[in-house]
Amino acid sequence: MLKYILIFFFTLGTLGIYAQEHEEIRYVDISRFELLGKSDIADAVNFYRIDEALTAGFSERLKALSKNTAGFNVVFKTDASFITVKWELDRYKVLSNMTPIAVDGLDLYGWNDGKWQYVSSARPSGEENTWTFIKNMSGEMRHYRIYFPLYTGVKKMEIGIDPESTILPADGSLLPKRKIAIYGSSITQGASASRPGMAFTSVLGRKLNADIYNLGFSGSGKMEMEMAEALTGITPDLFVLDCVPNPSVEQIRTRTVPFVKTLRKAHPDIPVLMVESVFREHAHWDREWEKTVSGQNAAFRKAYLDMKEGGMDKLYYIGSEGLIGNDHEATIDGTHFTDVGHMRMADRLYPLIVEILPEDE
Amino acid sequence: MLKYILIFFFTLGTLGIYAQEHEEIRYVDISRFELLGKSDIADAVNFYRIDEALTAGFSERLKALSKNTAGFNVVFKTDASFITVKWELDRYKVLSNMTPIAVDGLDLYGWNDGKWQYVSSARPSGEENTWTFIKNMSGEMRHYRIYFPLYTGVKKMEIGIDPESTILPADGSLLPKRKIAIYGSSITQGASASRPGMAFTSVLGRKLNADIYNLGFSGSGKMEMEMAEALTGITPDLFVLDCVPNPSVEQIRTRTVPFVKTLRKAHPDIPVLMVESVFREHAHWDREWEKTVSGQNAAFRKAYLDMKEGGMDKLYYIGSEGLIGNDHEATIDGTHFTDVGHMRMADRLYPLIVEILPEDE
Repeated sequence: MLKYILIFFFTLGTLGIYAQEHEEIRYVDISRFELLGKSDIADAVNFYRIDEALTAGFSERLKALSKNTAGFNVVFKTDASFITVKWELDRYKVLSNMTPIAVDGLDLYGWNDGKWQYVSSARPSGEENTWTFIKNMSGEMRHYRIYFPLYTGVKKMEIGIDPESTILPADGSLLPKRKIAIYGSSITQGASASRPGMAFTSVLGRKLNADIYNLGFSGSGKMEMEMAEALTGITPDLFVLDCVPNPSVEQIRTRTVPFVKTLRKAHPDIPVLMVESVFREHAHWDREWEKTVSGQNAAFRKAYLDMKEGGMDKLYYIGSEGLIGNDHEATIDGTHFTDVGHMRMADRLYPLIVEILPEDE
Repeated sequence: MLKYILIFFFTLGTLGIYAQEHEEIRYVDISRFELLGKSDIADAVNFYRIDEALTAGFSERLKALSKNTAGFNVVFKTDASFITVKWELDRYKVLSNMTPIAVDGLDLYGWNDGKWQYVSSARPSGEENTWTFIKNMSGEMRHYRIYFPLYTGVKKMEIGIDPESTILPADGSLLPKRKIAIYGSSITQGASASRPGMAFTSVLGRKLNADIYNLGFSGSGKMEMEMAEALTGITPDLFVLDCVPNPSVEQIRTRTVPFVKTLRKAHPDIPVLMVESVFREHAHWDREWEKTVSGQNAAFRKAYLDMKEGGMDKLYYIGSEGLIGNDHEATIDGTHFTDVGHMRMADRLYPLIVEILPEDE
């Protein structure tokens, strides 16, 4: 039924620019190119954000989510006139508050005029997919970047180009040098960006020219001690903690200080930026939710102030005020950001991160 | 499988604020309240945008699309402490570049501080759905507005409230007086807004306090003469033609002038605003698409200039330049607007429409 409906819609001619074309195609496995978004604790072969060897103490949910490919992206250069992609998913999912392109699909960006410019998206329809991102290009040598799905796992990905064209690893000068690890909830994982490249972590990565490790775990960014221990295996230039939406007020009260201190003990010099939860839209109307979100943020802020008063340095904080604007139109459901919310979040974090991190190290 | 996955995701606790609650609920059919977005040619009982009696000459596709409820919304007031909704769809659809909430779901807005403020969305999971939009409210008397699904039909809708609370038709003073009919493609119909209230037509309606008739037909806004004839049955304060993306260059060349003249003949005093197609993102990379979109816009502009030179007054035009910004990040697939694109489109049309239409008539 699902398949039938998708096909029906495609025939309307309003959606795809083009699916698979019947021309000669040379496929190249993406393992040949630089995978970005993989931290020191990732399994880059299987595209797991956290290597299975490190997840023994995790809940089943966290184990599963650590295999979602949120944040991974691959960079290469080619003079092809078209770019096709084949990708195989661990599981094809449909979620009511996300587009299948964001959950299971891919985004292509091209390097143009000194910036990453959006080219097109690859549409998923099941576990095995083929899609032509773009064709009829001029064939000049250019860099491209493909973002992986936000909410499922990827088993394999191949890039298809004209047989006579060249495809090569990206120039080193184009690869980001700064590394930022962002730990959080479904919002960090990318719900409900319209497509993978629009998660605020992806937007920030392009704005800052930084390699971002997306460590958002839908419903599960609860500051467990096992997670803190796992994160000590990463050595970024900055840790961002965007993990207030999931834990209870009590969990925030008891877990925040030990969580931050665990990171700090392992990495005394890495700054930590703590981000409050966005004030959920329904919390403006539902008095119980209002109490919950206010309580979560208050507990997080208190933990920050306690650590600051205790003399911890390189610790930064950003409140929820204006995090995604004040027009109440930045979410799909009160909680999860649409692209409007993701862009505003990136715009809000950007100047603060530039202040914390030296310009071009 | 689909159902299983949705349920799996809900149990992650990150998505819903709450599904159906087991408390006593009084249901009221929405036919008791003012339905907005219904033009003079609509069938308000069956929620068809064009009455079946008028669609005899239409293609099967157009007939089917005229039964999608894009743009319909209902207004009422209540002092309930919670608002639940039951809605039955003609068909539950999943599209790769839209969220199920936008295709099949509903949005609730509340009147607050002199504005319509987003409250929450109702999540669909099949043809028959129940969802609690909000609860734990203070219970003061307020106005609310529910937007219908963008891409499917609705058979029935009921609002559920506390049995002891009151629910009444909206105050007349809150109902919009100006009426604007917008004819176009999938973009007008609302692809790929995150939820029904974020289609640019809905955003514009709130900004302008106008009743907007959404006459967008996915893949099918091709200026057929049968459609022009049907549209003459409407008497809005303004016609907006956003129908360049679907017809071929040749169709635009031959159909635009007769289409506009048909509207003008029936309604000599109603202004017409012609809107170019947004320049599709992939057209910056694909030389064939670049030719197509440039050709479509050039043909539409020429038709406009010919009519202006021919002495037609109250005819307005807006070019594609900056229609959805210049950062290339306003679409999900190069063509269909995310909320970023829809908000930018509304922001761009707003001042022009204010100029064309007298302030408060």
